[in-house]
Amino acid sequence: MRSNDPASGGLDAAQVEALINRHFPQIHVGGRSMLIEAAGDRQARVRLRQQDRHVRPGGTLSGPTMFTLADFSIYVAIIATLGEAGIEAVTSTLTINFLAKPAPRDLVSVVRLIRVGRRLAVGEAQLFSDGAAEMVAQATASYALPNSGLP
Amino acid sequence: MRSNDPASGGLDAAQVEALINRHFPQIHVGGRSMLIEAAGDRQARVRLRQQDRHVRPGGTLSGPTMFTLADFSIYVAIIATLGEAGIEAVTSTLTINFLAKPAPRDLVSVVRLIRVGRRLAVGEAQLFSDGAAEMVAQATASYALPNSGLP
Amino acid sequence: MRSNDPASGGLDAAQVEALINRHFPQIHVGGRSMLIEAAGDRQARVRLRQQDRHVRPGGTLSGPTMFTLADFSIYVAIIATLGEAGIEAVTSTLTINFLAKPAPRDLVSVVRLIRVGRRLAVGEAQLFSDGAAEMVAQATASYALPNSGLP
Amino acid sequence: MRSNDPASGGLDAAQVEALINRHFPQIHVGGRSMLIEAAGDRQARVRLRQQDRHVRPGGTLSGPTMFTLADFSIYVAIIATLGEAGIEAVTSTLTINFLAKPAPRDLVSVVRLIRVGRRLAVGEAQLFSDGAAEMVAQATASYALPNSGLP
Repeated sequence: MRSNDPASGGLDAAQVEALINRHFPQIHVGGRSMLIEAAGDRQARVRLRQQDRHVRPGGTLSGPTMFTLADFSIYVAIIATLGEAGIEAVTSTLTINFLAKPAPRDLVSVVRLIRVGRRLAVGEAQLFSDGAAEMVAQATASYALPNSGLP
Repeated sequence: MRSNDPASGGLDAAQVEALINRHFPQIHVGGRSMLIEAAGDRQARVRLRQQDRHVRPGGTLSGPTMFTLADFSIYVAIIATLGEAGIEAVTSTLTINFLAKPAPRDLVSVVRLIRVGRRLAVGEAQLFSDGAAEMVAQATASYALPNSGLP
Repeated sequence: MRSNDPASGGLDAAQVEALINRHFPQIHVGGRSMLIEAAGDRQARVRLRQQDRHVRPGGTLSGPTMFTLADFSIYVAIIATLGEAGIEAVTSTLTINFLAKPAPRDLVSVVRLIRVGRRLAVGEAQLFSDGAAEMVAQATASYALPNSGLP
Repeated sequence: MRSNDPASGGLDAAQVEALINRHFPQIHVGGRSMLIEAAGDRQARVRLRQQDRHVRPGGTLSGPTMFTLADFSIYVAIIATLGEAGIEAVTSTLTINFLAKPAPRDLVSVVRLIRVGRRLAVGEAQLFSDGAAEMVAQATASYALPNSGLP
């Protein structure tokens, strides 16, 4: 059985969403476009539902849209890993590589944390157009953890 | 007298804005929040007018808002430098360092291009809260130039 | 059967090494510390043999040592993918995250290219201490391809 | 009169060099190639003396050489700013843009810290060939400060 104890298996998607809704509801201003599909210890998968406001002429998604998804999805993995203490995580540095023009479809970010220290977490997000195998963007980011709860 | 010939002094703010409006009007969807204050050869200054949709509870501007301004303002400097050929520039890699929480005021990006090659341009953006001396974010980004017009 | 035709399966480790020795022998100045263990289409694995000159007091490997391995191993994957045309690849931007202090042992870089375009290739390198599961550094880098041979 | 009190004007070049020699002498293994030319609060200038081992055929300096100078020179500015507490600074993330092939001459790095927080410092290094105006590389890096001495 998969444990949801943050000390072992991390929070699941519903638990992370509940924490975000309680502490940070403004993330949803403008519509609930972000769907946490899966979460767990050091990992997450988040879907950005395609909406007209994200689409650029020529039918592609904008750079800021991809940045927003990458940043949010790594944040989700941090909360899944650290629990409530992760809410205070603050993006310190983010590098994003734009690899291909995404189709005007849902965008899915697959995240893995590659370091969770006492004061810094580092994660990688790989972004794909829904149903396509080719990566459209890749980001790595580090987050300051003001109150990680770790010794 | 300052020349506006792209071969010498670069386009000025009004010339860059006219090119963007002609080729890329969708940048203004959601309101004209970006104001090109100054432009010239390898440089630009762009203001993001504070709007409610950019503000986070606690009264700070969001990371995506800062990313959007950094990316757009470097793009402005590329067009000011290359003229119409710069319109096709595409962000390849962008690294942003978040340094301080910006006040809920206008945000100003000061850009300098540090390389303009045949196929790649690299720029740096420094973001400040309007009227404050402390930098709130700093970004460097490289752009592919599909059609730079340079030999 | 695995093909070594660059158009299908990429060059193998011996083929990449032969190309590097012919075009770029100076990479080995100071001793053959880099061992190409595996290569193929869009991938490579390179080992840095531990040598005294790489070790810092306290028994860890230096940042420049990790940078050098990351940069070289992605370059190997580009040559494995593009063949002789990859020799001309030039590092454009490299971001490296230092995650943990590596032990004073061999360091192994596992590389995957996440984009191979006509003019730009992007790769990711994950660095591990020999025999350990924890990543000690992660890098992403883009390379200009002056002469990729692709249309 | 310029103060050398870390609380006001920062350490000067000789003071930083004395601290590094005491705590971290191994930086000079292989010869004293790094010369701290100037240091002060949030700034430094460091020269890499050209040596044969840094030169690549074709007469240019290697990427690892530029990385090493960028990383070390930002570290110097951190020590100049924080004094002895800065010695413990550890590179967390470094992004380097290679802009032009440097001539086989001395390389000079001009550094400015853009953030000095309690737990993180962020600096920018601009690298020039000695006597030339064109930048050959630019780096931004963040450093964890285990023991900054700041409240």
